[in-house]
Amino acid sequence: MSEFELDGRIARDSDLVSVLGLCQLRIQNDSRWPWLVMVPERPGMTEIFDLSPAEQALLSTEVNRVAGALKTVTGATKINVGALGNIVRQLHVHVIARFEGDANWPGPIWGFGQAQPYGESQKQDFLSKLVEALS
Amino acid sequence: MSEFELDGRIARDSDLVSVLGLCQLRIQNDSRWPWLVMVPERPGMTEIFDLSPAEQALLSTEVNRVAGALKTVTGATKINVGALGNIVRQLHVHVIARFEGDANWPGPIWGFGQAQPYGESQKQDFLSKLVEALS
Repeated sequence: MSEFELDGRIARDSDLVSVLGLCQLRIQNDSRWPWLVMVPERPGMTEIFDLSPAEQALLSTEVNRVAGALKTVTGATKINVGALGNIVRQLHVHVIARFEGDANWPGPIWGFGQAQPYGESQKQDFLSKLVEALS
Repeated sequence: MSEFELDGRIARDSDLVSVLGLCQLRIQNDSRWPWLVMVPERPGMTEIFDLSPAEQALLSTEVNRVAGALKTVTGATKINVGALGNIVRQLHVHVIARFEGDANWPGPIWGFGQAQPYGESQKQDFLSKLVEALS
């Protein structure tokens, strides 16, 4: 069995926050929305149902826990959760905090406009709150 | 505790296929993509993490089973799974079969263009295959 290797585009566009039981929890380098990306550390996965039943259950638990923490930390109007993978085929789940009037509200965020990098203190402030909410 | 009542916009835009343990399985009235919508029959739910832990696990099982069946039936390039709810707040999960070159490929389908109704035989043919794959 091959080793898990993170897709290069995910590595380029996001930073590692922590490693959960199954997933890498990553933050997208785009300050327009608080946007997390979760990547199960299993090689060769494309669809959620490619995972074993136990891993599917763990993915659900981890994603929902992160989504709840993101809601708590941001006070978002709505959390968006999506596994698309039309461009990057390595299985990954997006968890995004949405607010009325944010960029492209109420439409989806994928493929919209250009990423706006974080200021470093803005990102660290958000991540310290997120990690605390997850602990 | 109030009764579950389906959101009027979901009722208008989709048809009931079957009722699973937790979710209504519905087909979106849009032939541009094979597009299913799953609605947990629980009142007052907006976010996945609003469900009880047992219901969250059941939702994951049902969604992943439907996603696998949709892949089998359609031979899709990629299955898209998403819970957005920016417009309709009643908790619902989209499960969509995507193909290279389909409408808005590789972008997301939400908010794109206008729905194209099915011909009745086209819809029934698809649904009979789907129900067989789920049984």
